[in-house]
Amino acid sequence: MSFQNTSLFPSTANINRQDHLEIGGCDIKDLATEFGTPLYIFDETTLREQCREFTSSFRKYYPNTSVLYASKAFINLSLAQIFLEEGLGLDVVSGGELAVAQAVNFPPEKIYFHGNNKGQDELESALAYGIGRVVVDNFHELGLLSQISSRIGIKQDILIRISPGVDPHTHAYTTTGIIDSKFGFPIQTGQAEEAIRKAVQDNNLRVMGLHFHLGSPIFELEPYISAMEIAIEFASRVGLQLQEISPGGGFAIGYTIDQAPPSIDDYAKAITSALQGPDNPLLSIEPGRSISGRAGVALYSVGASKEIPGIRKYVSVDGGMGDNIRPALYGSQYEAVVANRMGANNDDLVSIAGKFCESGDVLLRDIMFPKLEPGDLIAVPASGAYAPAMASNYNLATKPAIVLVKDGKARLIRKRETYADLIRNDLL
Amino acid sequence: MSFQNTSLFPSTANINRQDHLEIGGCDIKDLATEFGTPLYIFDETTLREQCREFTSSFRKYYPNTSVLYASKAFINLSLAQIFLEEGLGLDVVSGGELAVAQAVNFPPEKIYFHGNNKGQDELESALAYGIGRVVVDNFHELGLLSQISSRIGIKQDILIRISPGVDPHTHAYTTTGIIDSKFGFPIQTGQAEEAIRKAVQDNNLRVMGLHFHLGSPIFELEPYISAMEIAIEFASRVGLQLQEISPGGGFAIGYTIDQAPPSIDDYAKAITSALQGPDNPLLSIEPGRSISGRAGVALYSVGASKEIPGIRKYVSVDGGMGDNIRPALYGSQYEAVVANRMGANNDDLVSIAGKFCESGDVLLRDIMFPKLEPGDLIAVPASGAYAPAMASNYNLATKPAIVLVKDGKARLIRKRETYADLIRNDLL
Repeated sequence: MSFQNTSLFPSTANINRQDHLEIGGCDIKDLATEFGTPLYIFDETTLREQCREFTSSFRKYYPNTSVLYASKAFINLSLAQIFLEEGLGLDVVSGGELAVAQAVNFPPEKIYFHGNNKGQDELESALAYGIGRVVVDNFHELGLLSQISSRIGIKQDILIRISPGVDPHTHAYTTTGIIDSKFGFPIQTGQAEEAIRKAVQDNNLRVMGLHFHLGSPIFELEPYISAMEIAIEFASRVGLQLQEISPGGGFAIGYTIDQAPPSIDDYAKAITSALQGPDNPLLSIEPGRSISGRAGVALYSVGASKEIPGIRKYVSVDGGMGDNIRPALYGSQYEAVVANRMGANNDDLVSIAGKFCESGDVLLRDIMFPKLEPGDLIAVPASGAYAPAMASNYNLATKPAIVLVKDGKARLIRKRETYADLIRNDLL
Repeated sequence: MSFQNTSLFPSTANINRQDHLEIGGCDIKDLATEFGTPLYIFDETTLREQCREFTSSFRKYYPNTSVLYASKAFINLSLAQIFLEEGLGLDVVSGGELAVAQAVNFPPEKIYFHGNNKGQDELESALAYGIGRVVVDNFHELGLLSQISSRIGIKQDILIRISPGVDPHTHAYTTTGIIDSKFGFPIQTGQAEEAIRKAVQDNNLRVMGLHFHLGSPIFELEPYISAMEIAIEFASRVGLQLQEISPGGGFAIGYTIDQAPPSIDDYAKAITSALQGPDNPLLSIEPGRSISGRAGVALYSVGASKEIPGIRKYVSVDGGMGDNIRPALYGSQYEAVVANRMGANNDDLVSIAGKFCESGDVLLRDIMFPKLEPGDLIAVPASGAYAPAMASNYNLATKPAIVLVKDGKARLIRKRETYADLIRNDLL
């Protein structure tokens, strides 16, 4: 790939005089030396810029917008702290994500709880913490939540998650708003209407409005516009006064140079276009990938190579499907650069394999690189979302260290796992 | 599924007088109450039986056989201890797996180190521990290993991993012995011969023989027979006296009732059929899945349900792709039973969804169950291999507890992760 032409890397990415990739003013080779590889590098500037751009772009078109970061893309203590400082809310989908929010004293009223099967214990903790919204997914949850609210003695604010029946044309695994989905109350079947009727009559719950989520990543604007219109029309038809509407997230980022996702401004303009009536409901959006994705860069060291004449050349790195399962799981494609020789000519066609013991563990297939040598550093941009978040200990690999870079300083925000961590919970 | 007709469950599985599933003499409902769900249950009897059956079946046909457990299927301290007691060797693919072996004082000479990109630090630790064999995958490793052996002052026993060019007809991700593979030296290209020539001339290495691995799971016998013949013929052609030959593992197990994998005896008979010459090389085999797979049962509690009339009924459980990514990653199919009502009629067609926030998180698609209620216990057999081994903290789910059952007693062998574990390595 040609580094200059892409916006796949963090906004602070640069090539320094040593011909090394630099992010947040930090020389990537120095980071590899200090922290080892595989390493995930998050650029604080990009994270904060993305938070601000979502807020300002949406509020430009529609001032009554609230932005929540979707933790499932990736969250840890330091990122939660940054989102807190940037004034964002937080979308959590588990007791674990809620615990991270609590650990940085995230204001409970700015937290929304999502998920198709929230546990009773999770809902109890969330309500005890005073969580802002529970996004109710199904009838079972509606009953459970009512009981818990009643027991605690509160009236819980909720959104009803509807399934609008709109296909966003993304991977089947991450398409969520069609009728055949485990998520939400379908409009077409009458179940969404029934849910609202029940919830409105329930004295333990306060229905603030509707939520839907179409999938992720969505490269088109039309599905958002359609779904917003469907949701608003539906609310009007069933007599629900919308105090809030949430189209979720799913905003795309570029992973490869040939991808051209809409800008944040494009998404903002499209989504808010449906909100031109006299009502002024709160619009809450939930970007995850589009905030943390571009901010993160994965860094690997080259080890073994294998050239099979006439077939393929494999170059292996010291990470792989354990720290980024997206290529194996979704067939996701990435670009990469040789971070210690940014100016070298790309004259060799190779596939970058991981070190995990299966053939599916290939991070990048058939792309052009300089002739790679052991010790070369491979930097993969757009790795901040759904890579560390889905990391495993397959092959008993230890999960990578994570650093946050800014103004030439790198701060370790997650220590590399140790072999001791792998057996910490084992009892012999 | 009809429980009685299947050998998918551990050999001690039973239905007790309370109509509950029982494994290792333990009532599954009691285990759920005591340890919570999701829970992974390993049956010690099945684990030990499988170890013994591999050893006895292969030695019946070919006495000079050594059986190594392939740790990547799943290993922890307790399982490593069992394999040690059963006299097996251990196949490890990382420093992490080696560390587990070391933690139970596994005899180093019984450990084989595999992998397409072993790190220098990993090889150094392995050689310092006195590991039995390094299974050399590529020229880079050959050079690295020679240097390390020389520095330590030993002559390391190695196997050369060849790629025999045999297609075992399994999932592309787990097909490893074809020519277009990141693993091993291909015979067809002359690289395998070159590797042997180099290794034999290297004073720091002792070439004991050849290893190959075709993929996993392999339901056919013919690929093993072909590959054994190819390897033996190749050794003879290049003048390598085989002191050892290893066809790896990949032995299939049944995941669904319509699957009929060969028996261990079938595999043994087929593989050893190629060893009828006057030489008597050590045959080392590396079952992983076929030892731990059937011994493990995943246990979930039912939560929310969603019936979309005319489309599908989703029933959600409290685990999913975080603890078992195989359905999403490979399209793997499983069976399941309602462990607390084993006699109930299967009259409802449902899909069992996980609780993870993506549509791909469906554990079982469109299978017959009794009408499920919240609190019902879903037991998924054949879950011992590549489920806990590939578990992630996606959605910040905590990894499940694991118990080992035997003779009516259940012993916690891995504690459930806590929210504190999720941020243990975070630095704010």
